[in-house]
Amino acid sequence: MDAAAALALVRRVTESPGYTHEMGTRVLAAEPGQADMAIDSRPGVLQAHGYFHGGVIAGLADHAAGRAVTTALPPGRFAVTVNLQVSYLAPAEGETLIARARAVQTGQAICVAQVEVSVLTGGTELRCALATVTLRSVELPGSLVRP
Amino acid sequence: MDAAAALALVRRVTESPGYTHEMGTRVLAAEPGQADMAIDSRPGVLQAHGYFHGGVIAGLADHAAGRAVTTALPPGRFAVTVNLQVSYLAPAEGETLIARARAVQTGQAICVAQVEVSVLTGGTELRCALATVTLRSVELPGSLVRP
Amino acid sequence: MDAAAALALVRRVTESPGYTHEMGTRVLAAEPGQADMAIDSRPGVLQAHGYFHGGVIAGLADHAAGRAVTTALPPGRFAVTVNLQVSYLAPAEGETLIARARAVQTGQAICVAQVEVSVLTGGTELRCALATVTLRSVELPGSLVRP
Amino acid sequence: MDAAAALALVRRVTESPGYTHEMGTRVLAAEPGQADMAIDSRPGVLQAHGYFHGGVIAGLADHAAGRAVTTALPPGRFAVTVNLQVSYLAPAEGETLIARARAVQTGQAICVAQVEVSVLTGGTELRCALATVTLRSVELPGSLVRP
Repeated sequence: MDAAAALALVRRVTESPGYTHEMGTRVLAAEPGQADMAIDSRPGVLQAHGYFHGGVIAGLADHAAGRAVTTALPPGRFAVTVNLQVSYLAPAEGETLIARARAVQTGQAICVAQVEVSVLTGGTELRCALATVTLRSVELPGSLVRP
Repeated sequence: MDAAAALALVRRVTESPGYTHEMGTRVLAAEPGQADMAIDSRPGVLQAHGYFHGGVIAGLADHAAGRAVTTALPPGRFAVTVNLQVSYLAPAEGETLIARARAVQTGQAICVAQVEVSVLTGGTELRCALATVTLRSVELPGSLVRP
Repeated sequence: MDAAAALALVRRVTESPGYTHEMGTRVLAAEPGQADMAIDSRPGVLQAHGYFHGGVIAGLADHAAGRAVTTALPPGRFAVTVNLQVSYLAPAEGETLIARARAVQTGQAICVAQVEVSVLTGGTELRCALATVTLRSVELPGSLVRP
Repeated sequence: MDAAAALALVRRVTESPGYTHEMGTRVLAAEPGQADMAIDSRPGVLQAHGYFHGGVIAGLADHAAGRAVTTALPPGRFAVTVNLQVSYLAPAEGETLIARARAVQTGQAICVAQVEVSVLTGGTELRCALATVTLRSVELPGSLVRP
């Protein structure tokens, strides 16, 4: 898939009705093996102290990882998360949460992406989490049913 | 904290305006060291194939783990997630997503909870994910600022 | 595979020349979906403070998980670790390190095991670590070459 | 601590009697926040197919991460692993296993390191694993006793 097709695919999946649309997820950039996403601050994505909730960070990292890997797979295949690991480094306080996912392995069966999550505040980005996501490559659509 | 105080605390944190309220998170049960949560299916929590999104599962597991641990800590302390690990076992297809978190370690510095996530469909529960959450115990409120 | 065949397979793999033999790994029990292993204390498995080294704990958990899953797979297949996650709960100080692995998912592609690690000292067992291991099921022998 | 002191400390800890010495661990380089380690191939570090065993990879990553973080901490403190996560990317087949650890967070309580593990074969390095290690910073020596 070329860069334009990758961006179109990532936008379509992210902006369709569902969780990522509900969270206000915006696609910043995408090309095969890469996907950058953002969510702007609003009460519905924060925890009690006014930081982005850990679940929002985990969800954005998971989604970005899935898009980074799927755009690097052969046609007719997509990536399903089997393991998500998030290290929280600092409180995610700021205006916009940004996740940058990079595919580091796209095997026939197993794929891995790493994601750097930062928070933008007053024009400055601070890294607030790192994620490693393990995915499997499945054929559309039947093999989705069971891991 | 006794069981009634634990339940009241967990309800207050979960139902206050913010991410968990926005996701429609319901508290099923809570006592010191334990917290059970649920989210009912609706389009805003699903992914493209109609399953609960991995980010919703991760967020519910994280929140339940934090409540299970915080209710087991001495007064004036609460738990902040430092590491979240989710293993996805099966597509989360069903009416209600349920997370049951248990504190397995509540040290002075580091705490660990395990979470079993299942999906309820037609009266049957199917396990769909397992999470291990590492948290640190911090004093209210100053020590929240930096890990 | 029946229980006797599982035990024989696990013993053969564990006691053959290589890492697990070098570490002094003993098979305590094994049946399809389960494997219990032990390593006795000696200087070569300890860290600077006299506890079992974290690498020994991780290695024992990984090996036990692989055996628990492989014995539950159809003939001709075996399990290869793709992700290992270990939570260290307490210093592993004692005479014998014990890992008990249980397969919790044995799908066609992806398998998951959980492992409880404890240390035996003066007749008492103390839990010192929990591990979650994600594996993939591969055919013997060609598919081992690349993930 | 300056670079020479860091290297001396890392060498002393790694080469003292115990697990890392037994595994034949060599220090390639170390400075505050960084530690590079290697283990040469021999039967006692391999699994059944002749690759470096996953436990050896996990142990080398854990040890390198601990050294990278400890050398970046204030005097009188050292790092203890609380969570180890390893993603295995490719079979570790080759002459020498190399782990390069970098501290990415050294907070007062919690520290995080990332480790890239590769295998050297015929002059070429192939990345075979990525690890994320969460550690806590403790005072020497009393606070080691319980997490």
